[in-house]
Amino acid sequence: MRALRVGDSGASLVDVAMPQANGEALVRVTLSGICNTDLEIARGYAGFRGTIGHEFVGIVEDPGGGPIAAGERVVGEINAGCGDCALCNAGDSRHCATRTVLGIVGRDGAHADYLTLPARNLLRVPASVTDQAAVFVEPLAAACGVLERCPMQPGVRVAVIGDGKLGLLCAMVLHAADLQPVIVGKHRGKRGIAEVRDIESLSVEEAHAQPRDYDVVVEASGNATGFALALDLLRPQGTLVLKSTFNGTTPVDAARIVVDEIRVIGSRCGRFAPALDLLERKAIWLDGMVSDVLSLDRAEQALERATAPGVLKVLLARD
Amino acid sequence: MRALRVGDSGASLVDVAMPQANGEALVRVTLSGICNTDLEIARGYAGFRGTIGHEFVGIVEDPGGGPIAAGERVVGEINAGCGDCALCNAGDSRHCATRTVLGIVGRDGAHADYLTLPARNLLRVPASVTDQAAVFVEPLAAACGVLERCPMQPGVRVAVIGDGKLGLLCAMVLHAADLQPVIVGKHRGKRGIAEVRDIESLSVEEAHAQPRDYDVVVEASGNATGFALALDLLRPQGTLVLKSTFNGTTPVDAARIVVDEIRVIGSRCGRFAPALDLLERKAIWLDGMVSDVLSLDRAEQALERATAPGVLKVLLARD
Repeated sequence: MRALRVGDSGASLVDVAMPQANGEALVRVTLSGICNTDLEIARGYAGFRGTIGHEFVGIVEDPGGGPIAAGERVVGEINAGCGDCALCNAGDSRHCATRTVLGIVGRDGAHADYLTLPARNLLRVPASVTDQAAVFVEPLAAACGVLERCPMQPGVRVAVIGDGKLGLLCAMVLHAADLQPVIVGKHRGKRGIAEVRDIESLSVEEAHAQPRDYDVVVEASGNATGFALALDLLRPQGTLVLKSTFNGTTPVDAARIVVDEIRVIGSRCGRFAPALDLLERKAIWLDGMVSDVLSLDRAEQALERATAPGVLKVLLARD
Repeated sequence: MRALRVGDSGASLVDVAMPQANGEALVRVTLSGICNTDLEIARGYAGFRGTIGHEFVGIVEDPGGGPIAAGERVVGEINAGCGDCALCNAGDSRHCATRTVLGIVGRDGAHADYLTLPARNLLRVPASVTDQAAVFVEPLAAACGVLERCPMQPGVRVAVIGDGKLGLLCAMVLHAADLQPVIVGKHRGKRGIAEVRDIESLSVEEAHAQPRDYDVVVEASGNATGFALALDLLRPQGTLVLKSTFNGTTPVDAARIVVDEIRVIGSRCGRFAPALDLLERKAIWLDGMVSDVLSLDRAEQALERATAPGVLKVLLARD
């Protein structure tokens, strides 16, 4: 089968053997999405070697002992815990110390024709949710994770920094939760996607004119200037939700965190069920979020395309 | 009068005019304490120019319209708010946007013969609390601020990084709150001060052998290696309380904060009343915390002394 694998010299599409299920479910991937984390892994982040990709929708080929039958359409939670520790037993494998993570840690990922995951990781996709929506469940769940880690009350002044895919999804999730987020970014076109959904948007320059005005800032740009802007926008004792993974160390004005008594909350993966629910209720409208759909055969070009300015989600179709 | 002032070429003891009270209370300082922040300000932190020092005990000379009479012994909260904004009206000037801060921001400090503060900032010192204890109220209040920002339940696994003055006081406050803190530091002698109070102590090497074992870590070392160690000691979704002010930017592994979903909580000043209460109840025992008491005439040597290895608090007496 085809697989987009990262080795010592970056990512390349290669032909590999079908995965062995070993008691897990086997899924035939129908569509996968390229995440910025894929691009960072291809550049060396996390030291991963293997097939990348963690956003997918597919068809069950072998249920792997689980309740979802062959032929059903699924998405899958990406953290596969040991199934035996306190965290896993409490139903949350996201921080299991020996977890593998699809296409990120110790487990081949989704930019391939087939993948395996523990059967308990799979969720059925409701018929009303298209493949092109379902492939967004993982990043949408990550955006939902903001509210899991930092519950917000109506009336809260909240800004999202970064008008890329993750920033836009975060703003949409907050908007769907009846909050009034403001999205801050550099790209007029991307911010337009927020504006047509009645989400207020600001340029970075406009945001700088509102220092110390926000109760909560969600940092979804993944760069050090975004982190610094977040600190500038927060009121004293405000909360910064760190959403993006950064490669390497980031220079942080730690004295500002202390003097203004800021709370910084890291937020990584969210749960899939609330994200699927948002899609089924049509509370999130993904039009304009997909820039390109390429064949898996063109996976290397697709990675390149995903780095181009103005580009949002690039999807890999199986054909 | 004498005053230890920071100018373009560092700190020097000079003769200056008596301060004008301008409606504030006038206090004759009897004892002041040198804080690491004083040393950082003398090196340029916060861009302050003027008399440094913010830890003191003194005698009221002019009540400034307040209820504490001339001749009474006082300590004073160091943040002087505008008295008119929402924060000040709610009784907490610590984050007033236009505040001055004694010896730190826009207000001459305590390493002088006299200082002024708004009368509402002063608190009477109970007769049972000695001058050498009362001069610790400000840093002790800062240590109490850890629990104000991050309430902890019995049984929490908590470590304090840094065996300097602030780290020791944080560990003592947690211990007095019936928690079982572990203090981590480089200095055998300083850690001994914790041990005689039945507080467990670890060398940095010993701590490295307990990765991901703590629910809460209080960073009180003020350096980047302490910050990195704190992240190593925390369990996933643990809490890092940042207590020290850092000069300049600190390189931070932000991805670790996101992947492990750490909460980082900045904590600066605490309230004085709980700290005075701890001293009055003899719940905090300060023996061994004072390395030297020098005359204000020798303030420059005292600053130098405060930087020496193994030295804890250096006090400036008036004579």
